[in-house]
Amino acid sequence: MNKHTIDTVLKLRLRHVPGQLSRVAGVIAEYDGLLGEIVTLRIGEDYTVREVTVETRDDEQTARMVEAVRRVDGVELLGITDRVFAAHHGGKIGMTSRCAVEHVRDLRTIYTPGVARVVRAIANDPTLAWELTSLGRSVGIFTNGTRVLGLGDVGPTASLPVMEGKAVLYDKLGGLSAVPLLVATQDADEFINVVERLAPSFGAIHLEDIRSPDCYHIEDELRRRLWKPVMHDDQHGTAVVALAAVINACKLTGIELAGAHVGQIGLGAAGSAIARLVMAYGVRDVLVTDTSAPAVARMVGFGARAVDLPTLMREADIVIATTGRPGLVKAEMIRRGQVILSLSNPEPEIAPDMALSAGAAFASDGRSVNNALAFPGLFRGALAARSRSIEPAMLLAAAATIAAYAEPGEIAPSPLGRALHEAVAASVAAKAKELGLEGTARP
Amino acid sequence: MNKHTIDTVLKLRLRHVPGQLSRVAGVIAEYDGLLGEIVTLRIGEDYTVREVTVETRDDEQTARMVEAVRRVDGVELLGITDRVFAAHHGGKIGMTSRCAVEHVRDLRTIYTPGVARVVRAIANDPTLAWELTSLGRSVGIFTNGTRVLGLGDVGPTASLPVMEGKAVLYDKLGGLSAVPLLVATQDADEFINVVERLAPSFGAIHLEDIRSPDCYHIEDELRRRLWKPVMHDDQHGTAVVALAAVINACKLTGIELAGAHVGQIGLGAAGSAIARLVMAYGVRDVLVTDTSAPAVARMVGFGARAVDLPTLMREADIVIATTGRPGLVKAEMIRRGQVILSLSNPEPEIAPDMALSAGAAFASDGRSVNNALAFPGLFRGALAARSRSIEPAMLLAAAATIAAYAEPGEIAPSPLGRALHEAVAASVAAKAKELGLEGTARP
Repeated sequence: MNKHTIDTVLKLRLRHVPGQLSRVAGVIAEYDGLLGEIVTLRIGEDYTVREVTVETRDDEQTARMVEAVRRVDGVELLGITDRVFAAHHGGKIGMTSRCAVEHVRDLRTIYTPGVARVVRAIANDPTLAWELTSLGRSVGIFTNGTRVLGLGDVGPTASLPVMEGKAVLYDKLGGLSAVPLLVATQDADEFINVVERLAPSFGAIHLEDIRSPDCYHIEDELRRRLWKPVMHDDQHGTAVVALAAVINACKLTGIELAGAHVGQIGLGAAGSAIARLVMAYGVRDVLVTDTSAPAVARMVGFGARAVDLPTLMREADIVIATTGRPGLVKAEMIRRGQVILSLSNPEPEIAPDMALSAGAAFASDGRSVNNALAFPGLFRGALAARSRSIEPAMLLAAAATIAAYAEPGEIAPSPLGRALHEAVAASVAAKAKELGLEGTARP
Repeated sequence: MNKHTIDTVLKLRLRHVPGQLSRVAGVIAEYDGLLGEIVTLRIGEDYTVREVTVETRDDEQTARMVEAVRRVDGVELLGITDRVFAAHHGGKIGMTSRCAVEHVRDLRTIYTPGVARVVRAIANDPTLAWELTSLGRSVGIFTNGTRVLGLGDVGPTASLPVMEGKAVLYDKLGGLSAVPLLVATQDADEFINVVERLAPSFGAIHLEDIRSPDCYHIEDELRRRLWKPVMHDDQHGTAVVALAAVINACKLTGIELAGAHVGQIGLGAAGSAIARLVMAYGVRDVLVTDTSAPAVARMVGFGARAVDLPTLMREADIVIATTGRPGLVKAEMIRRGQVILSLSNPEPEIAPDMALSAGAAFASDGRSVNNALAFPGLFRGALAARSRSIEPAMLLAAAATIAAYAEPGEIAPSPLGRALHEAVAASVAAKAKELGLEGTARP
């Protein structure tokens, strides 16, 4: 796993003598910075201006590296840009018009008086809203910011960059219009009521970064109340991608998944949804373990078998870990021939190479299990079918498609590009139709 | 006022002989259709294919006109498109990404792991959200659909095309990102609570198409609770544009507004806000009348003088009517030299030419009083200044700027183009600064 997540772009004026850039590169290496792109901006008589991108691990290291570069003789530091912060400047998304407004006629078409006829048509037949508004391709991304990335409860405002990131991916990967909605409440029932009141605004509801166990109650209740797709991505989006990875890992190792014993370590939102989806896939023996008794009891209710960690490691053919506890799985626990997916970010429960040395048939960390693989196609497919809901069979269809798109030898495909997401959407929509859910959504 | 609000595009295959198009035009005229654009799509050996746009008043007239065109000898009707419905197909807006997602690095910059540093930065200092998210240029347009255009309570879903129209105008005229939010409740306090919970999602709150008197309580309470601009457009946006029109009408007729007697007929959301803004402008004698005693009492509380209609028409130098009651003002009520603005749509309280014949110095209907003139610049200015609120002095600044942009002899400028809205925004932001409101908003 690449821990160098900070990209700093240094704009440098360098004396134009042999070895000058090499000295800068040497200093960067000395401070453990990874050298990225080097772009020449200007060549003067006796100097050059270059932009040098350096990857570092944390702000302190960055500061030390920058100071050292500044001290190099013959180097002038003209500017420092943090690439991530620069990319966020002014926000990452914007609501834009799909029609021109250049003439009075345009105004009269998209606004008054023309719009009144469209309003009347929808008032008489609300299903026309699917065609005559953006409802058929819109998703509301609702969060209260109580469990954001690995950062915990940062509150609604600080979660906005993550929600904007999701909206970017919806646009670029799924062709959908997604809106971040930050709900300032820690109360699950108040959250439910707010989303219910707002639900007419969107074709589907994406729940994001809500702490467990609140996320279960919120999702269950909204699924019950609303006639449109509701999905908590940290549960089911992650589960779809994890299952796709498991399917491919089994293919690579010759394990027959349906007949295998699958162990799930860690029963947070992601882990419990993975265990449920593995059961929905048809795996009869799913072993689970967690430090939270209610989390374990919930999964037993769904048909999983509660065991302790040593039993799980002994009996499971496939082990999936989502605990957020680095190093939890020791080399000596690994059984020869096991598939080990230790998915916690940024540090896995056991490093893949260590698991392989200990005898695992296959091992991977969370790097390739990116939930951007699933949610754009899942929602696009559900919306295309106008399905009232996203059912487990639709999640399974998405997982199968994602698995099929992986390159040979890989467990997951790249989330970039549109083809995969269109294929996921098509399989999800087809499954909705097969389930008799086509056209069951209400505006 | 042009009542021909339906644009139908007829795709016709015409025999290529002299007089053929003229016969079609004759039939359209016979059925009282207005001929618009004629575009030639294809010229064959003995025929042409053309698209003919026809404006009509209502669906029944359209159907009769189409049937008559179909019966013309040598004419084949290949297709009929309703231009307004065609423009609404698939919705008028979409949330789009402002950054590229082409490489893994892009994902790591705008989503995990890069985004985590931005989240932490905002969690430590929430004011950074103005720079690092779309908050500084975003507006939530909230409605419950209880008073949409002249159509009344059509409910949230049917109001969406209007809200999307507003969002289009925000994008095209104001450069802002506006999101329609449909709140499914008729209860004012529940509406307030939903908006309050959602408020972290947006830089400013635009209230739209909410019935009175609920709209007053909702706006007052949200202004009190939130540290960001809240404005009910049907009140204050309309008032700003009406005041701009009054300012210019006075200029055209040589009336000194501040010393004049101004009469406001009709105290709905628009009328009462117009009367209040006229008072804020400095007019000391504002006469008001309405059939609703509470509406009149509310305005008396703000300093207006309650009178009956005959008294108002006798004493006012400037008369503004927003009653929705066509023909309410009779020719014999007009006093020589009065300014008459009968703003109700689609039928004014008195036709301008009738008011002029009866002795009015100036008369106009609601055609040029388009509130697209005000809201984009008002919100853009308030957001630019990071003002906690939009105060009456800022509304007055906007009205003065709008008035100044009208062509000589006109009472209002065209809402098209960006220059006007940028000027309105600049004057609103400058006034906020003058009032000490700059930087008082909170994310």
